[in-house]
Amino acid sequence: MEQLNIIKVGGNVIDDTASLLEFLERFQQLSGKKILVHGGGKIATKIAAALDIETKMVEGRRVTDEPMLEVVTMAYGGLINKQIVSKLQGMGVQAMGLTGADANLILASKRPVVDGVDYGFVGDPKAVNASFIQNLLENDILPVLAPLTHDGNGNMLNTNADTIAQIVGSALSETYEVYLNFCFELPGVMADINDPDSLLSEITRADFVVHKENGVINAGMIPKLENAFQAITEGVKAVRILHHSQVENLGKQGNYVGTTIR
Amino acid sequence: MEQLNIIKVGGNVIDDTASLLEFLERFQQLSGKKILVHGGGKIATKIAAALDIETKMVEGRRVTDEPMLEVVTMAYGGLINKQIVSKLQGMGVQAMGLTGADANLILASKRPVVDGVDYGFVGDPKAVNASFIQNLLENDILPVLAPLTHDGNGNMLNTNADTIAQIVGSALSETYEVYLNFCFELPGVMADINDPDSLLSEITRADFVVHKENGVINAGMIPKLENAFQAITEGVKAVRILHHSQVENLGKQGNYVGTTIR
Repeated sequence: MEQLNIIKVGGNVIDDTASLLEFLERFQQLSGKKILVHGGGKIATKIAAALDIETKMVEGRRVTDEPMLEVVTMAYGGLINKQIVSKLQGMGVQAMGLTGADANLILASKRPVVDGVDYGFVGDPKAVNASFIQNLLENDILPVLAPLTHDGNGNMLNTNADTIAQIVGSALSETYEVYLNFCFELPGVMADINDPDSLLSEITRADFVVHKENGVINAGMIPKLENAFQAITEGVKAVRILHHSQVENLGKQGNYVGTTIR
Repeated sequence: MEQLNIIKVGGNVIDDTASLLEFLERFQQLSGKKILVHGGGKIATKIAAALDIETKMVEGRRVTDEPMLEVVTMAYGGLINKQIVSKLQGMGVQAMGLTGADANLILASKRPVVDGVDYGFVGDPKAVNASFIQNLLENDILPVLAPLTHDGNGNMLNTNADTIAQIVGSALSETYEVYLNFCFELPGVMADINDPDSLLSEITRADFVVHKENGVINAGMIPKLENAFQAITEGVKAVRILHHSQVENLGKQGNYVGTTIR
């Protein structure tokens, strides 16, 4: 099977135009089939604040009432997605921006209220239009996915970008050898966040259990790794957690530095 | 050749959710191949005001500096486009939202400063990726186009929705029998705007010259009609100007009420 790299980028990388451009320059050097999934939470929070809309987070996830849904639809589906697409086009990459509503790419269920927590218009994906994405990839079009889905009843839904990357990776793993790559500001999963030499180059399921018990893997990384093992169970070849500057090395055997989960 | 209806909707129709839904219900009843092009200037102005960004217009056209470019990219490419797409998906229509940057759909030149007027990031289209739109249409996907293009150098550009409809219509007229339909709040071109019985059902080039001279066709309608004749010169079969409630009748011979330009 042909390889497919799904790259998720978020956080500080896309909040600043200079670092976004630097990242995209590196990203476009990665050869082969690929999909870019972006976040944009900080930009959404900034726009919401400018519109006097309060950002509420519960366990690191955005509570999305109707005004906030408008903000994330504007910020993720419009501003960030189109900035990335136009910049990639400027580099000669045939990129196309998509939300989960476009061509019914990702259908989701509105998250139910659990333990009194109502996340509002937040979507948990339930179906991916894999043949449509495959069609784009076979026509050498690069899909750029915003962290938005829809409910099939006329509503957009806010959806975590890591989840988008994972569900699309799982859906395409019957057709491609899928590598799921989460880019962020650290070199990977660290045994000691203050020690750059403590990078864990590989984490197995057994390691994960041990690291969770002895506290090496902290609260923020646990859902990311649980997502990763879930993706592997669903057919993804490997999940990699890496510094965003490593993206150009992903295709080069041996040159890549980061954490690999198999 | 197969018929293709390009429908441009703007103004009051999309500024209000209830009338947008009503319009989309009518639009989805129109059978055959079609493309929807939307505006959204009033919503952009509202969002700009909420963000303390001043809207400046010159001869009815928005001056688009960098903050305003961010607003229209959010409003047109994000909020309005995705609301339309998700609502059409909710009606079972396989809609997909696109700006001119996506898949290099519409490449444009940044408008030069003429007579001291700098419109800023405003784009005049110069090339359409017609084969990509055709590919969507042949796969029964409905393109929903936002009034945004790109310059091929990494920048989005703000572009008039009427112009988007016209350039896409011209580009597709080698493949389809293209009908360009401009929906708005009046029954069509009126000899007397206060007399509903004064609808001009057809305007030829000769009529246009006469109506311009005797003042029957006013300033706001002149560029619309000039666009229309331009489209016909470039191969579009007919241009129709109609009330948005007439959209479902466009495919029904004899049932449609509005102004036709051939």
